[in-house]
Amino acid sequence: MTHGLPMTVRDPELPARVRIYEVGARDGLQNEKTAVPTGVKAEFIHRLAAAGLATIEATSFVHPKWVPQLADAEALFPQLGDLAGSTRLPVLVPNERGLDRALALGARDVAVFASATESFARANLNRTVDEALAMFEPVVTRAKAAGARVRGYLSMCFGDPWEGPVPAAQVVAVSRRLTDMGCDELSLGDTIGVATPGQVTALLGDLTGAGIATDRIGVHFHDTYGQALSNTLAALRHGVTTVDASAGGLGGCPYAKSATGNLATEDLVWMLHGLGIDTGVDLARLTATSVWMAEQLGRPSPSRTVRALSHQE
Amino acid sequence: MTHGLPMTVRDPELPARVRIYEVGARDGLQNEKTAVPTGVKAEFIHRLAAAGLATIEATSFVHPKWVPQLADAEALFPQLGDLAGSTRLPVLVPNERGLDRALALGARDVAVFASATESFARANLNRTVDEALAMFEPVVTRAKAAGARVRGYLSMCFGDPWEGPVPAAQVVAVSRRLTDMGCDELSLGDTIGVATPGQVTALLGDLTGAGIATDRIGVHFHDTYGQALSNTLAALRHGVTTVDASAGGLGGCPYAKSATGNLATEDLVWMLHGLGIDTGVDLARLTATSVWMAEQLGRPSPSRTVRALSHQE
Repeated sequence: MTHGLPMTVRDPELPARVRIYEVGARDGLQNEKTAVPTGVKAEFIHRLAAAGLATIEATSFVHPKWVPQLADAEALFPQLGDLAGSTRLPVLVPNERGLDRALALGARDVAVFASATESFARANLNRTVDEALAMFEPVVTRAKAAGARVRGYLSMCFGDPWEGPVPAAQVVAVSRRLTDMGCDELSLGDTIGVATPGQVTALLGDLTGAGIATDRIGVHFHDTYGQALSNTLAALRHGVTTVDASAGGLGGCPYAKSATGNLATEDLVWMLHGLGIDTGVDLARLTATSVWMAEQLGRPSPSRTVRALSHQE
Repeated sequence: MTHGLPMTVRDPELPARVRIYEVGARDGLQNEKTAVPTGVKAEFIHRLAAAGLATIEATSFVHPKWVPQLADAEALFPQLGDLAGSTRLPVLVPNERGLDRALALGARDVAVFASATESFARANLNRTVDEALAMFEPVVTRAKAAGARVRGYLSMCFGDPWEGPVPAAQVVAVSRRLTDMGCDELSLGDTIGVATPGQVTALLGDLTGAGIATDRIGVHFHDTYGQALSNTLAALRHGVTTVDASAGGLGGCPYAKSATGNLATEDLVWMLHGLGIDTGVDLARLTATSVWMAEQLGRPSPSRTVRALSHQE
């Protein structure tokens, strides 16, 4: 940062621009033990937008019983109205009831969350993979009819804590179901963080081979084993230009087997800017936001870049 | 680890085998506030060897005034005699006096440590770059004459806290000096952890362009900004097959501006094994060693893989 670092050296095989899909305000705060006040969430999202993030997942319209941390979605979303012109603010919708709530508040980007494995579909949604997809189909259809853009999250694309390695064919099959039902974009989740770059390249090859264009694929890597950034590099090399990340690395305890440990947006931005890849993000401003949020939460950010930059001034 | 993870998917562009140059016992323990007992060091190195690491930097023959943590080199090295047949045990030697001490104990691998920048040469060695190289020249000559293998460390190859970005030409020039004086191998250090993959690829291209073969180049990345593993991936793609890493991520505080934050050997092994690259390392055994060492030091390992694997059983 200071002294003109990182030094910028382009790699012509990589894309010139990457869209960061910021998940800290939803995926991050959803994993907090106690709910963050609505006003803090709103300020966090405004600060993220001011730092240049153009896509910020805002909240979830899942039933408050399941995710009490985000039970204030109806109160929060209207506080973001001033951002709607310049920032995409996707929200999670698990079912038609959630979609109704989101559309009633004017949401223009929604996301459903499927699983590539039966074990996680059962654990997370209490349904089979097929049953979950059947639940999402009318959500996607109605969201599209209402003019919304739809993202389909796909969990456990690389490994599953109960099933082990996940065959790429299984991921491709569910991905096709999601795009066929109308999802504009997929987010391939390495929910337990076990993927390595060869597996990423192979899965992306299978997906594009099955007719899913790279510009419809986002990647969502977790840093549980420290692999998120090298996996991102492999995905960029394959032409992927949408990368999920969480400001400050928010998203639960990276020590737990139970997954999480999101890729920190700052660590991602450091690499992308070093590679001369445009993100639109002001890293100093983003880091300041994560330092502020860490103060709200009362513990340091797990992002190495946030720690390095905030200790060096 | 459990459940057959990481899944192995080869990338044919990457090498089939990587030599891990383990630095935890020297670079790691050198940064401890209080010296680790000699017996613990010896057990650590024996456990690392039993986990399959074939090159383990053991200690440093620098003057005890500068590195009191390694003042027990004379006592430690003879305790490793049983490993000498199967394991390379390099030691740092700053000058002829250090070389004499190392050779007297039977060391067969030694390393000198130069700087690519004037600022760090001054800070670390209290010399200009030229003066430091002049100091190393007789060390390298005499070590070679004694039949030892010589490594030349080169610090600040990508960025310098005082000078900012480091021009590749400057790194190439010092690298050539080191290989010309007889160093068998170089270790390119990103001492403050600022490099990104394009810069790594560019520097390696310049070095091979200057006649330094890839098989003489090792890389030594720090995880200060979370970039070590993606930089390693870029180096592997360029054909590099020697990678420095520190068991458990030992090597000082990753929060400090003052550098350190070594790439954890376990995080590296996770990626390499996922890529189907042979390392000879037993990851479970290595992780158990780092957990044991963390207990000796009284604090958790910063390695994400160590944390994930040791919490999941």
